[in-house]
Amino acid sequence: MLFGEYRFRLMPYLVLIEFLAVIVSAIYGVLLAARKGMDVVGVFVVAFAVAFGGGTLRDLFLDRTPLFWIGNAHYPVVVLAIALLSGIILRFVGRIRPYLLLPDALGMALFTLTGTAYAMEAGTSPFVAVLLGVITGTFGGVLGDVICNEVPSLFIPSPLNATCAFTGAWVYWGMLEWGGFAETYALTGGLVTIVAFRLAAVKWNWCFPAIREPT
Amino acid sequence: MLFGEYRFRLMPYLVLIEFLAVIVSAIYGVLLAARKGMDVVGVFVVAFAVAFGGGTLRDLFLDRTPLFWIGNAHYPVVVLAIALLSGIILRFVGRIRPYLLLPDALGMALFTLTGTAYAMEAGTSPFVAVLLGVITGTFGGVLGDVICNEVPSLFIPSPLNATCAFTGAWVYWGMLEWGGFAETYALTGGLVTIVAFRLAAVKWNWCFPAIREPT
Amino acid sequence: MLFGEYRFRLMPYLVLIEFLAVIVSAIYGVLLAARKGMDVVGVFVVAFAVAFGGGTLRDLFLDRTPLFWIGNAHYPVVVLAIALLSGIILRFVGRIRPYLLLPDALGMALFTLTGTAYAMEAGTSPFVAVLLGVITGTFGGVLGDVICNEVPSLFIPSPLNATCAFTGAWVYWGMLEWGGFAETYALTGGLVTIVAFRLAAVKWNWCFPAIREPT
Repeated sequence: MLFGEYRFRLMPYLVLIEFLAVIVSAIYGVLLAARKGMDVVGVFVVAFAVAFGGGTLRDLFLDRTPLFWIGNAHYPVVVLAIALLSGIILRFVGRIRPYLLLPDALGMALFTLTGTAYAMEAGTSPFVAVLLGVITGTFGGVLGDVICNEVPSLFIPSPLNATCAFTGAWVYWGMLEWGGFAETYALTGGLVTIVAFRLAAVKWNWCFPAIREPT
Repeated sequence: MLFGEYRFRLMPYLVLIEFLAVIVSAIYGVLLAARKGMDVVGVFVVAFAVAFGGGTLRDLFLDRTPLFWIGNAHYPVVVLAIALLSGIILRFVGRIRPYLLLPDALGMALFTLTGTAYAMEAGTSPFVAVLLGVITGTFGGVLGDVICNEVPSLFIPSPLNATCAFTGAWVYWGMLEWGGFAETYALTGGLVTIVAFRLAAVKWNWCFPAIREPT
Repeated sequence: MLFGEYRFRLMPYLVLIEFLAVIVSAIYGVLLAARKGMDVVGVFVVAFAVAFGGGTLRDLFLDRTPLFWIGNAHYPVVVLAIALLSGIILRFVGRIRPYLLLPDALGMALFTLTGTAYAMEAGTSPFVAVLLGVITGTFGGVLGDVICNEVPSLFIPSPLNATCAFTGAWVYWGMLEWGGFAETYALTGGLVTIVAFRLAAVKWNWCFPAIREPT
């Protein structure tokens, strides 16, 4: 039922990545909400949406219960604490922002791969499993943007993000299904692929071009 | 299955509050949609979203079936009637608006407490139960705002609303779980807390400040 | 489980309409996303939302599993192909746009009627069944608009669309429940009603007026 009871329990360091990922996602949510002049209620909801939105969509689409944040009831409390401390966080976040990139990429990778694993377990097609993984890893930010009345930044030209998740999810799937690798190796392969691809995309500013109707 | 069959059936006056709450929420939806120049289809959908959005989110999150508006099939008809009469309603709504505050606060309180009760019944943690209560009571308006392409008014500085629901849901929970009060007393305690807090917040304009990144 | 295994399997030409409808919806999604300057990720997601959003909402509301696009796993691949080819599609879409109207109306009609049928099967009230049909047929575009940060075009004055679906769903329901017609006849009656009504609304520009608060 809980994440820790899944087949990934073998790998306790994953719980640390998950915990960091929730914190970093929530901080991104705080930044997003602060730009719209929201109060503490809005900051909490947007942080919540960024942190748990992707997993919630996955669980609704796969009809899994309980939802991630209902089953792991300590995480909403963590997000509340971040929202209550957001005034302080915003004072020094400018300085720590470069350090958020790695835990964010790790968390995005982890959520993508666990999302893919849950979908495979539910018996979806490989492409649908990869899609659900990418949704888990990246749609929290989309939800946050929609609540904040912005065109989702995931969908406009900016350093590749969903594409890294997509690629790594296929690596994970391929290592499991074609390569016959054990779960631990496939997960590590997927994680390394996503994180390396994402960091490279940010460093060298790899973007897709905008697609526009010719005038 | 139906609301009336729940443990609150002992209290028939709650059905009256519920009915008034649906009507008032739908009228708020009509006002919201009319500001965006929508036609009768849009007015109906926004009124529907404001009236039933919070309960729908709660039921999806808790995997409850049928949804409130599917199980209580007369309510969508009431909302349709309000949408069809919206031209008339808009003519005199300016004069009745002050009188909408109390039934709206009562309805928000009722939906918050029943949402909390449903979540407790489903075995969530206390904090998650309170969150699901607040979502039930206040997220209809958030959905309406998102459909209307507005930053949700619940999340920007304005008289406290979600905070009143949050406080009253804890009062309800505390009276049940710590105080050992009977359902009727806990519900009344929660209702009185939320309504009094909300009316006071509107009267004295209690708002949280906006949280902004220092420049 | 799959659409083809439902009682409509008797009518294999419906599968062709469904296939065309997915393609045309995805193309409308491409047009919508291109107007916002999205990249291929955004184009794919918006095309996906327009094509499958309505059915996904219906399945979530009725607690049906698997979702349409999880059970019919070839359709997401079709949408991906359309997103990848969107640069080419956008070059000649200006010329084919008039030809999209009929397959779009047919698809909207089909999804409305199957949505109504699924809801009836789930035991909802007639009005709720019709609503769920209209949601299935028309809310993909609403979701696409919300993701693209637009007031949904379905809700502002423009040639009748949801109203056609609403009318045809009642024709379908009436022929089945009052008229005692066989499924095939009721479905055909509903389809013809919706398509004829929709084409007429576009040709003669039948719109509802905007509903506005008197100033």
